[in-house]
Amino acid sequence: MTVPFIPPRRTLMGPGPSDVPQRVLDAMARPTIGHLDPAFVELMEQIKSMLRMAFRTENSLTFPVSAPGSAGMEMCFVNLVEPGDKVIVCRNGVFGGRMLENVKRTGGVPVIVDDAWGAPVDPNKVREAFAANPDAKVLAFVHAETSTGAQSDAATLAKIAQEHGALTIMDCVTSLGGTPVRLDGWGIDAAYSGSQKCLSCTPGLSPVSFSQRAIDTIQSRRTPVQSWFLDLNLVLGYWQSAGKRTYHHTAPINPMYGLHEALVMLEEEGLENAWARHRAMHETLKAGLEDMGLRYVVDEAARLPQLNSIHVPAGVDEAAVRARLLNEFNLEIGAGLGDMSGKIWRIGLMGHSARQENIDACLHALRACLG
Amino acid sequence: MTVPFIPPRRTLMGPGPSDVPQRVLDAMARPTIGHLDPAFVELMEQIKSMLRMAFRTENSLTFPVSAPGSAGMEMCFVNLVEPGDKVIVCRNGVFGGRMLENVKRTGGVPVIVDDAWGAPVDPNKVREAFAANPDAKVLAFVHAETSTGAQSDAATLAKIAQEHGALTIMDCVTSLGGTPVRLDGWGIDAAYSGSQKCLSCTPGLSPVSFSQRAIDTIQSRRTPVQSWFLDLNLVLGYWQSAGKRTYHHTAPINPMYGLHEALVMLEEEGLENAWARHRAMHETLKAGLEDMGLRYVVDEAARLPQLNSIHVPAGVDEAAVRARLLNEFNLEIGAGLGDMSGKIWRIGLMGHSARQENIDACLHALRACLG
Repeated sequence: MTVPFIPPRRTLMGPGPSDVPQRVLDAMARPTIGHLDPAFVELMEQIKSMLRMAFRTENSLTFPVSAPGSAGMEMCFVNLVEPGDKVIVCRNGVFGGRMLENVKRTGGVPVIVDDAWGAPVDPNKVREAFAANPDAKVLAFVHAETSTGAQSDAATLAKIAQEHGALTIMDCVTSLGGTPVRLDGWGIDAAYSGSQKCLSCTPGLSPVSFSQRAIDTIQSRRTPVQSWFLDLNLVLGYWQSAGKRTYHHTAPINPMYGLHEALVMLEEEGLENAWARHRAMHETLKAGLEDMGLRYVVDEAARLPQLNSIHVPAGVDEAAVRARLLNEFNLEIGAGLGDMSGKIWRIGLMGHSARQENIDACLHALRACLG
Repeated sequence: MTVPFIPPRRTLMGPGPSDVPQRVLDAMARPTIGHLDPAFVELMEQIKSMLRMAFRTENSLTFPVSAPGSAGMEMCFVNLVEPGDKVIVCRNGVFGGRMLENVKRTGGVPVIVDDAWGAPVDPNKVREAFAANPDAKVLAFVHAETSTGAQSDAATLAKIAQEHGALTIMDCVTSLGGTPVRLDGWGIDAAYSGSQKCLSCTPGLSPVSFSQRAIDTIQSRRTPVQSWFLDLNLVLGYWQSAGKRTYHHTAPINPMYGLHEALVMLEEEGLENAWARHRAMHETLKAGLEDMGLRYVVDEAARLPQLNSIHVPAGVDEAAVRARLLNEFNLEIGAGLGDMSGKIWRIGLMGHSARQENIDACLHALRACLG
């Protein structure tokens, strides 16, 4: 007979999930109601409104996809890209590569702009790509590369796309709530994020937002969207209809309670205060890490405050250190992904994890393990 | 400033979500850990094992998709159907129609077997469809039609598919845990369900199971799976690898705690006892409904105990009754979908909702509203 699962109490300082505040956990445990209940519809409207605040957008079509960030990414691509459409994809880490996979699977024609892992996307290369491909329909880039900790200049990249009449798809999974994201200020057409990073909710929901131009593009498609579950034409009937909600799928009720509470907390703190806190906590952590002789992967100008990638010191068994951090200190930090596997650690300061006691615990534990 | 959301306390007797027991809600609120944490990997293994119990299968590849049942459905179709593949789709309600949509969007060639809404799938029509289409690769049917309350004879349908060398995809969203499902006994190749019906967990997860024959088919595809998020070749690396887990997407940690607890409770009760409880509660509810002169939509032989579809009595404003049930009695029952919209009510007795006090409350409230 299987017994109930009691998880260990960890300090989550990896690349997400981040620590989930007790208020959010408590919200998750409130009684389940139906997905068409008027009370739930009111909750949906409040979530949409607060997500607009977080994304800095007036986009009416702003809501959480009922699945993790990977599905939010796929929703953007399968709705905006049709077979034969040319898409400029910027790749400077794992998630740019995943965007490329999405383009291929929709039948789009990718034009790849490569930059080194750990570097931001180079706007000049994007300009060159548009010069060579003036018919490109979409520019896709990752604002905050979770695999490296590098932040790209979204405002400049979006502006280049606009100059060429292209739509923009932006991954802001790791930036939303932690570092400035301004969909309207930058003119982003489609963006997706995750609940489990700087919003400090449990994983499983992907906030997305679409501009009117994106909606117009979707509504004038020549071909049906290849995914039924992610077809915005259908999802709209549930999340967006002015009158009667149309059943599309059963929304994850209790995780929505959690996301709502996480957004209420963000509203209470104030978005700009949250950005400032992530920045301040980063400075404190950085001082401690550098004091131990650890070196950052990303140049200071492009460094994400909420994701601190550092080189594993020579001669150190990185997996053994992470195992000891977890087993002796209940502290999770992240390993490298892909090309950076075994070479870097990723220390997250996301959402509720971006606080002094976490930094103290992390520096103490790292000092103990690195002697 | 938005205030925290405190949901009303409803009695959920619609077509799902069903009432979530306090133990499951409490589990959802336990501290979040990482999706690659060894403790979480152990939880995953226990969930897989208990799902095998619920599905009555030895299928190694049995796990919950990180998204609602619609995504579980789509996972089955996008992995098993390639462009040009012929698929016999049985349609006797909304969810058969959704299967058809999935076939079309994968580029498959659908052969539709239609039966009246409220009737089970007619095996003779399926035999005729195979006779006319001996090259059909897949038979797809809904075991328990959530839109009507009709149960089809899965054993017979699967046997016909086997006689013609075809794979079977079965929707058991509403049957799993409530009425017998025997994947191995029937020889089903791919099945998907939902967490929020007879398992009484919060919505948002879709248990699926694939036979070795299904896996062989997927691994010998000529074309890539069109969905990145639902590509089993990739998902396998996270859920199935013997050694190191490969990161694919971030699993919804806390909902998994909830599903685990719901499955522990099912194990404690015993699967056959749960089936018997659903049957007994159905008999009690039925006696009460018939006593009020209400008539069932589905013939007794094909009636699902956990989903009681009844005709709205002539002259009754069905929406007004449902609104009064919700507002005065905090009781949710379901409306009709599609062709049955406005004509039927669907009263669920699923999972934790299948108990005497719910039946008493439901009959009392219905009497007050129809009196």
